[in-house]
Amino acid sequence: MVQVTLINYTPNPELTIATAARSSTSPSRVTKLRNELTPKQVENLLKRLLESGHLSPFEHASFTFAIEGISRVTSHQLVRHRLASYTQQSQRYVSLKEHGYVTPPTISSRPEFTAKYQQAIEAAHKLYSDMQATGIPMEDARYVLPQAIKTQLVMTMNARELLHACSLRLCLRAQWEIVELFEMIKSEVEKVAPYLGAELKPKCYRLGYCDEKESCGIFPTKAAAKTK
Amino acid sequence: MVQVTLINYTPNPELTIATAARSSTSPSRVTKLRNELTPKQVENLLKRLLESGHLSPFEHASFTFAIEGISRVTSHQLVRHRLASYTQQSQRYVSLKEHGYVTPPTISSRPEFTAKYQQAIEAAHKLYSDMQATGIPMEDARYVLPQAIKTQLVMTMNARELLHACSLRLCLRAQWEIVELFEMIKSEVEKVAPYLGAELKPKCYRLGYCDEKESCGIFPTKAAAKTK
Amino acid sequence: MVQVTLINYTPNPELTIATAARSSTSPSRVTKLRNELTPKQVENLLKRLLESGHLSPFEHASFTFAIEGISRVTSHQLVRHRLASYTQQSQRYVSLKEHGYVTPPTISSRPEFTAKYQQAIEAAHKLYSDMQATGIPMEDARYVLPQAIKTQLVMTMNARELLHACSLRLCLRAQWEIVELFEMIKSEVEKVAPYLGAELKPKCYRLGYCDEKESCGIFPTKAAAKTK
Amino acid sequence: MVQVTLINYTPNPELTIATAARSSTSPSRVTKLRNELTPKQVENLLKRLLESGHLSPFEHASFTFAIEGISRVTSHQLVRHRLASYTQQSQRYVSLKEHGYVTPPTISSRPEFTAKYQQAIEAAHKLYSDMQATGIPMEDARYVLPQAIKTQLVMTMNARELLHACSLRLCLRAQWEIVELFEMIKSEVEKVAPYLGAELKPKCYRLGYCDEKESCGIFPTKAAAKTK
Repeated sequence: MVQVTLINYTPNPELTIATAARSSTSPSRVTKLRNELTPKQVENLLKRLLESGHLSPFEHASFTFAIEGISRVTSHQLVRHRLASYTQQSQRYVSLKEHGYVTPPTISSRPEFTAKYQQAIEAAHKLYSDMQATGIPMEDARYVLPQAIKTQLVMTMNARELLHACSLRLCLRAQWEIVELFEMIKSEVEKVAPYLGAELKPKCYRLGYCDEKESCGIFPTKAAAKTK
Repeated sequence: MVQVTLINYTPNPELTIATAARSSTSPSRVTKLRNELTPKQVENLLKRLLESGHLSPFEHASFTFAIEGISRVTSHQLVRHRLASYTQQSQRYVSLKEHGYVTPPTISSRPEFTAKYQQAIEAAHKLYSDMQATGIPMEDARYVLPQAIKTQLVMTMNARELLHACSLRLCLRAQWEIVELFEMIKSEVEKVAPYLGAELKPKCYRLGYCDEKESCGIFPTKAAAKTK
Repeated sequence: MVQVTLINYTPNPELTIATAARSSTSPSRVTKLRNELTPKQVENLLKRLLESGHLSPFEHASFTFAIEGISRVTSHQLVRHRLASYTQQSQRYVSLKEHGYVTPPTISSRPEFTAKYQQAIEAAHKLYSDMQATGIPMEDARYVLPQAIKTQLVMTMNARELLHACSLRLCLRAQWEIVELFEMIKSEVEKVAPYLGAELKPKCYRLGYCDEKESCGIFPTKAAAKTK
Repeated sequence: MVQVTLINYTPNPELTIATAARSSTSPSRVTKLRNELTPKQVENLLKRLLESGHLSPFEHASFTFAIEGISRVTSHQLVRHRLASYTQQSQRYVSLKEHGYVTPPTISSRPEFTAKYQQAIEAAHKLYSDMQATGIPMEDARYVLPQAIKTQLVMTMNARELLHACSLRLCLRAQWEIVELFEMIKSEVEKVAPYLGAELKPKCYRLGYCDEKESCGIFPTKAAAKTK
């Protein structure tokens, strides 16, 4: 199971974002603005920023997550979000003694493949261990490991990039494992920044339509929306 | 006077950096690592990362500053550091009623110019106000304002970029105002992250030589270092 | 007058973008794909990428511009686009002998201010020269120069960021000088990449509505669009 | 075998870099500077920029490569360089009919493992095909594929990031496959930009010492260099 733990974050993230936003159009000092903003004003400011696409103030709040138990399939997708910081467990320096791996639901629900899948992965892991035992470097032995193998990493992402990444990765067109990952990220953010967390949504909620070729049904495609 | 206030930051910044670094070469869970690291281990880890140039874990700690009273000369230089987030007071939406401005020491120490400098700036500011009073938009009236005019902004920068920016901007080859600014930034960081703060140094301290054409004297140039 | 000259660019920018995009979903080799794509297919691919917001392939084509004659007001705004590369003429190393400066139309159309504006700028420039003549460093003398003063820079931006920057800066809510600048940038791109150039448009054209509080009239606001 | 093909690049990359650099300290127009720079001046300028670490002008030249035949081990490492653009062949949309895979030399040189390695990979690939044949989506079937499996991608990187990436990835401490990849990248760059290509070197050449814990022998460690 994927595990996501928010291990650190900018305290008062929503107030920080609102303070920065307000400071751009106010003659007052920043520290004064921060002390005067009420929770209601903070929420209104965030709402207006999101509606008008003025997203840069969201960069002033960052969130650091420990992400454990995702496959290398998903970590490879995840690190494509370049406006974030990652420190990933190295397969060059950490030998994967326990062969934790991810099984897609489409495979675990098919009894004729479940055992074969498990055997293939265990066989690969055994060869990985055997090669290491006779002196093949772990960085090379790992070539035989399946992409299902689990990895862990520390990720820091600011609120602007979280909004962007969630707009793509909570879309049902994304792969199930990364959707699950970002659902857990959203849930961690909601605990400490409820308004922001609630705004981590697939892109269609922002656009008012689906911009993909085929819609999942939540929103009509842009073309369909027009002809209504 | 420039004023720099650290208004927010990732709590336990040094522990966060060290935890991320350690997690890349350890089979343990991230949360376990964080709980076990002693202050001495944290410092040793940071030291080793800096020596070997493995700087990416430093990205997991961010610092948010209110920067007030710098000239537009300096804010223009500052925002050239692209791996950071800025929200600057807008001259399109905030009318600069009080004409705060910066006077370089080379000018304030020259009596024959001090008054002229002041008059030129006040005349420009008066025209700025007069134009606005008769309907010229403030975004246009500001064209007449001198670059000495004060601005304020909120800046968030992670520890990796702080190391980089300080390596350039604490160099005596940088302009005096931005040197002052980064000295105050360093001083704010030192209050909450003493080891990291102490490591915010001009590039020559890291290199062991000066890589500019002429050295300020602290370290010899690379060429001079070789021939010793 | 602002002058924008496209001094360099990735040859065949549209084919390059389309080739990259196609390669992500094709088993064929990249070089084969490139040789087989017809101009019509290239255009269709670009169209589909834009419609679905799959913009990363647009990063494979870059454009390098010489930008001359913009004010420091505008260069300060311009360099806030962080996903681009800038090399700006330094006021620390280049003495501004000729006092080129920008006059906003709202000022040049008001005879009662035109002369005053010109005099204020010329007085500032004269003080700038006088201070330098008696040994004040040009990096300090420039504090008295108005923000209207002209600067020049070399900018490289990839097509994805051009789409983004134009979506904001061709919006009539942006300041007139930066709108003019991006209109010239668009015009330069159109000469060598007509389809891409035509797609450099304000954000409302992409969204189908205006996401600002008040619309300029081209598209209704989101709220107004709904109630129709 | 890895294959690297330079499919596109900014024409006259070295002249472009030198022109931008020169423009920052010259009162002349950019286009004039470009026409006047001699090849010798270009080389001298690039040399001085590299020596003093003034690297931003190198961003004005970009290189686009087709990279084919690398393992997913290496593509996962590669895309960690965030200041570049990637379009990678999708395992969600492209079924890997031919089971191309990479075999590390440490394995191919050990007869007792070569066959086992090959069998493990072929077994995994067969299961991948079988699962797909009965309706399991290819995006899920691929979890069983080994990390050795080949992938292809289009990468655009500017000269500044190439200098940085090569400083890390041509270091013998990097993994052999990514070292090979960057040797081929360097070789492609050398064909069209000989001076720049020659400067793509491991970091020790720039520093004058090895900053890792143990040196490969080319340069002494920093500590050893001091005690000499």
